[in-house]
Amino acid sequence: MAAEPARTHTHSYDSYDSPADDPAFALHRGGKIEVRSTVSVRDKDDLSLAYTPGVARVCSAIADEPALARDYTWVSKVVAVVTDGTAVLGLGDIGPAAAMPVMEGKALLFKEFAGVDAVPICLDCTDVDALVETVIRLAPSFGGINLEDISAPRCFEVEDRLRAALDIPVFHDDQHGTAIVVLAALRNAVRLTGRPLPELRAVVAGAGASGVAVTRMLLQAGIGDIVVSDSKGLIYPGRDGLSPVKQALARETNRERRTGSTEEALRGADVFVGLSGGTLAEEAIAAMADDAIVFALSNPTPEVHPQVAAAHARIVATGRSDFPNQINNVLAFPGIFRGALDVRAHSITEGMKLAAAEALAGVVGDDLSADYVIPSPFDDRVAPAVVAAVADQARKDGVART
Amino acid sequence: MAAEPARTHTHSYDSYDSPADDPAFALHRGGKIEVRSTVSVRDKDDLSLAYTPGVARVCSAIADEPALARDYTWVSKVVAVVTDGTAVLGLGDIGPAAAMPVMEGKALLFKEFAGVDAVPICLDCTDVDALVETVIRLAPSFGGINLEDISAPRCFEVEDRLRAALDIPVFHDDQHGTAIVVLAALRNAVRLTGRPLPELRAVVAGAGASGVAVTRMLLQAGIGDIVVSDSKGLIYPGRDGLSPVKQALARETNRERRTGSTEEALRGADVFVGLSGGTLAEEAIAAMADDAIVFALSNPTPEVHPQVAAAHARIVATGRSDFPNQINNVLAFPGIFRGALDVRAHSITEGMKLAAAEALAGVVGDDLSADYVIPSPFDDRVAPAVVAAVADQARKDGVART
Repeated sequence: MAAEPARTHTHSYDSYDSPADDPAFALHRGGKIEVRSTVSVRDKDDLSLAYTPGVARVCSAIADEPALARDYTWVSKVVAVVTDGTAVLGLGDIGPAAAMPVMEGKALLFKEFAGVDAVPICLDCTDVDALVETVIRLAPSFGGINLEDISAPRCFEVEDRLRAALDIPVFHDDQHGTAIVVLAALRNAVRLTGRPLPELRAVVAGAGASGVAVTRMLLQAGIGDIVVSDSKGLIYPGRDGLSPVKQALARETNRERRTGSTEEALRGADVFVGLSGGTLAEEAIAAMADDAIVFALSNPTPEVHPQVAAAHARIVATGRSDFPNQINNVLAFPGIFRGALDVRAHSITEGMKLAAAEALAGVVGDDLSADYVIPSPFDDRVAPAVVAAVADQARKDGVART
Repeated sequence: MAAEPARTHTHSYDSYDSPADDPAFALHRGGKIEVRSTVSVRDKDDLSLAYTPGVARVCSAIADEPALARDYTWVSKVVAVVTDGTAVLGLGDIGPAAAMPVMEGKALLFKEFAGVDAVPICLDCTDVDALVETVIRLAPSFGGINLEDISAPRCFEVEDRLRAALDIPVFHDDQHGTAIVVLAALRNAVRLTGRPLPELRAVVAGAGASGVAVTRMLLQAGIGDIVVSDSKGLIYPGRDGLSPVKQALARETNRERRTGSTEEALRGADVFVGLSGGTLAEEAIAAMADDAIVFALSNPTPEVHPQVAAAHARIVATGRSDFPNQINNVLAFPGIFRGALDVRAHSITEGMKLAAAEALAGVVGDDLSADYVIPSPFDDRVAPAVVAAVADQARKDGVART
């Protein structure tokens, strides 16, 4: 992937004087998805099979043996993309109606990248109990639940309770999709730098949904040490006012009990993962260890400009498509759900997430370079590799039904 | 429409030794609908418009002006087909999973007959408060709510409360779809018999969702008198144990305060509408007035065989496709929602329902005969006529947004 032309191409990030000039509005008019029939209804014989009276025989069979719903309805192939609109992109709590373009976009990507049918569901409630209860009531209609853009810390409890209550995959993409792609990129980055994960010290800026999930996944992958910061600085045991989730983070991270700022923690650190929406001074990157790895993932504005970071770091990644090494969730979620649905998994395990990261890293193969630690979303090897790895791991983990 | 060949064609109502032999199961495998993209995502420029960062500008615009959601998402064109699985076809309370083939079938028919995108939502709750609350929470995701196969009397309260709470069309098809098609067929039937509605006495067997709605609609259309029966016989003021809905029916119907059985009420009656799932003896039909109109609508087994009824009645209709005059909801619901969505109606008024019935009756035109009082679902004049009438009436009734 040649970096130069892409780096000068920032057209798509411009703002426009009015929606009439903005190609995003033209593209969004009337929405981005539709429901289509997969059978035809041309005459009354078709009608009597697809609808009454023929459909009654299918209903009766499912009533007698509920598992048949997976064979004779679309349920086993359709995912609900569920949000309450409280943490939409970097826009914050804009509510369910304004969240719809993102959820529809997600449904579009599910279909385009892995053939998964997905329905956007924007809920007009934000209470954790209400969200959990509503998704449980909806669950008979879907083969999987992709939670999206639900603010932290509510998102953790919502996902945990839904995973416990339902026998279909529940996956909060802002957490795990990001974590899987970060781990994949990091695995390839350390192949370049030659220093294994257990020897690395990482700093994660941001303790929201993605910051927490990335931290947990890097710990699972065996990273040496990791320090997490939020808007109040580094997280350490005993810091005032920590939420339960941050208390748990404090116990599992920051082996040296550092206090202070993100910048202070970066001195001598090997890895920076920015998921904070904040900014980072060039000096902080310059103070990192040799062969530093900088993932400045805030969108649309990375914590540090990738060209500035590249002056000091060995490997730089962002969330943007106009620089090399785009960390983009679309590399993970379509294939993960496709793989899980294909084997009718009743959940997505930690093993399946790690397998997805391995598979994603593996696509890069021998083409590995500092500007190519993660494949392009348009690399058509990505989804099949993730699908196969996830399905295989689901069988190994005993969560597959087929 | 020639009756003879159809009457001998009952193949599709046969039962089969096993699902493997049954073409309904073959047709249902994998479901009947899918979600499709309406925009393409071929490169990173596409991705940056359909998803981040471009989508954020569309979300922000909707957050500022919520009505824009109707222009820039699929919400204004998509209907939720919502059930709790408590009254599915004639199968009863088979639950949400087993109801899915019917809801998917409905979504299929919405698309095939009127280009309406519809998503089946089978809810795992049956309490009225829970159903109402859940649909309200879902509402930002949809442009209309088609309630389906929710048992009476809960269905009345669910619909009433949702109509009051939401500013999008809410329509319980088992009630109003049936009522609209019955009224359309009856309007044509009385053109043949030459006796206007105010001179007719009708007997409606069944006081469930469709029986109540048909009765209310015939009263609105000006029928002379109407007597309703349930499993305990005729409904009259003061009868023990009447539900609130039946108490209201008792006040508005049965002008002569008849008691006794459906059969007794049919003596000398002009119109029979069967929505009971029961059976009716030939003698009861024989005892009706001259030029009797018999709509035996229970499915798959009409209250009286149409050939038996035809020996005594002038006009006979059923719910089945293998006899003349099929009273089928698919004649109404696709066009009604299409018309309502086209003008972004915030509700479906009584006027819109009556206009749909008139339009549907009008399609028959000069081809009217005893075997042709209602058009075929496959008559491609039906949906456009209903769409236009409903949209026009929405504007007249002041519920259109465009």
